[in-house]
Amino acid sequence: MAERIYCGLDLGGTCIKAGVVRAADRKLLSSVSVETCRQRGPNFVIGRLIEAAGLAVAEAGLQMERVAGIGVGTPGPLSHRRGVVFQTSNLPGWVCEPVVERIREGTGRPATLENDGNAAAWGEFWAGAGSDVDSLAVLTLGTGIGAGIILQGRLIRGGRENGGELGHMIVQAGGRPCTCGQRGCLETYASAHKLALRFAEALSAGETSSVAVAGDEEITSVQIAEAARAGDPLASRIWDEACYYLAIGCVNITRICNPDRILLGGGLINAGKQLLLKPVREKFALEDWRLACPEQPLAPDIRFASLNTEAGLIGAAGAVELAIEEGLIHV
Amino acid sequence: MAERIYCGLDLGGTCIKAGVVRAADRKLLSSVSVETCRQRGPNFVIGRLIEAAGLAVAEAGLQMERVAGIGVGTPGPLSHRRGVVFQTSNLPGWVCEPVVERIREGTGRPATLENDGNAAAWGEFWAGAGSDVDSLAVLTLGTGIGAGIILQGRLIRGGRENGGELGHMIVQAGGRPCTCGQRGCLETYASAHKLALRFAEALSAGETSSVAVAGDEEITSVQIAEAARAGDPLASRIWDEACYYLAIGCVNITRICNPDRILLGGGLINAGKQLLLKPVREKFALEDWRLACPEQPLAPDIRFASLNTEAGLIGAAGAVELAIEEGLIHV
Repeated sequence: MAERIYCGLDLGGTCIKAGVVRAADRKLLSSVSVETCRQRGPNFVIGRLIEAAGLAVAEAGLQMERVAGIGVGTPGPLSHRRGVVFQTSNLPGWVCEPVVERIREGTGRPATLENDGNAAAWGEFWAGAGSDVDSLAVLTLGTGIGAGIILQGRLIRGGRENGGELGHMIVQAGGRPCTCGQRGCLETYASAHKLALRFAEALSAGETSSVAVAGDEEITSVQIAEAARAGDPLASRIWDEACYYLAIGCVNITRICNPDRILLGGGLINAGKQLLLKPVREKFALEDWRLACPEQPLAPDIRFASLNTEAGLIGAAGAVELAIEEGLIHV
Repeated sequence: MAERIYCGLDLGGTCIKAGVVRAADRKLLSSVSVETCRQRGPNFVIGRLIEAAGLAVAEAGLQMERVAGIGVGTPGPLSHRRGVVFQTSNLPGWVCEPVVERIREGTGRPATLENDGNAAAWGEFWAGAGSDVDSLAVLTLGTGIGAGIILQGRLIRGGRENGGELGHMIVQAGGRPCTCGQRGCLETYASAHKLALRFAEALSAGETSSVAVAGDEEITSVQIAEAARAGDPLASRIWDEACYYLAIGCVNITRICNPDRILLGGGLINAGKQLLLKPVREKFALEDWRLACPEQPLAPDIRFASLNTEAGLIGAAGAVELAIEEGLIHV
């Protein structure tokens, strides 16, 4: 019997990542990236997804017929069960797009759809830093905060398929406005992008920092991390606050999901363990909720994710396996 | 074949409730209550649980042998799988008590253990205001806030069996200190007891209210509800804030669990729909996160629970069915 092959697609606002994964050892055989061209609307973008799948399969030296299924991670809200993306805030014009059907028609292969945060979490569980535990929560700290929850080996999509949005958990009622319409979401304090935004706002409001900004250039979380490391007071304060809110997020995840492990992924973790992971762990430990029972420690360990920018596409590929188990894809 | 009978026990700090439920129609056949006598320690209290089970079975006109299993809801942290209560903040002296084993020995019947918040939620799902949906979250607003989550018909205990603690979700980082050691837990703003505590603190701090307190008498949430209804400014403010935080809690539940329905139960709901449910719903709707897709509304409906003070014991009885399905109890 030929070995089973999955294709994974990760649809972002800027680019589409695609790859082919061998089921047996969960090894990534190819990885390509194409521009999303989101301004050209859903039909065009779905065409790009189909194209990217073809490129990834070719890059792996395979034919499309060899692929057992194609998994797609996209922003939500969406229906995994129906394969439809309802709409997404960063892709203009998307209204109830039947992504799974279109990809199946365009490639001739069965397809399945997952929220991008769920796909990245599933990737870490299936083939990354969560593959040795049963229960896992993942926060992907990028433009926003993507998230996913796995309990007893099962991906928790929520009752109406759009749960798991830990980045939009309100941790500071009445706090900073979020792009989602709420206030005080974890994301507004601790995503890479919004941390940088917050820093820029502080500068605009007259606070001073050693971070030099040339003209219209955008400040990045990397610059803020460097400045915080060098002791810049404003950068340190905002960085520290991001770590604090991440720790609060980890407390809530522990209270609600009680996983074995919490993984932090996404661009922000390039700041490194000393600057990010250590303070998050320390602040988490300060929240003195751990009722002692030496036999069964209730607190998760908090670590960095390991699949970097490929978590989403690997997880989307791995989601084909879920769809097979659920009877959504027949092989 | 004789009809299947379950016994349910609900262990509270003040009293133990016990009842017998007929599996076929989930009807409560008997309900008794005995004092917990918690100061006498775990052995005594577990003896009281056994006694209460006997009383409930006798009250239903049955013999203990007729009971398929006994479900016990207790405070946590605990292990459902192992049948052990690790410790509980309101029962002195409890350290890794093998409750299930002791009850089995004391009654001759198999037993199962659930967190009391989970038991109450399961009761509403199994036999109450959540019996017509697939996914449900329940907040029981009493001394603290007990909670439970059911997704796709499955009770979500969390990775290490102590999740579902929505009352200890931090909604106001750095906010009011909670008895659990954290700050800003939902419970500190919206449980019946802590709302009253908050009101008493405001009075002590010199704020004035029409609520008259005689001597050392404790103010109750019922009095505050009455005063809020009559327009007392302090009572109205604190009541309104409780509703606000409950709405924030419902937003987070929606984001994380995305259930079909959220139920509010416990003593606080005696305040009535107009004073409690209506403002919670209104404030929830203000959090404008609902991305529109007419085909699939993502927001849950928010309602009152229906089993009142019997949710916990009915749910504990219903949990016997779960334990049978899980192979923990053999019939």
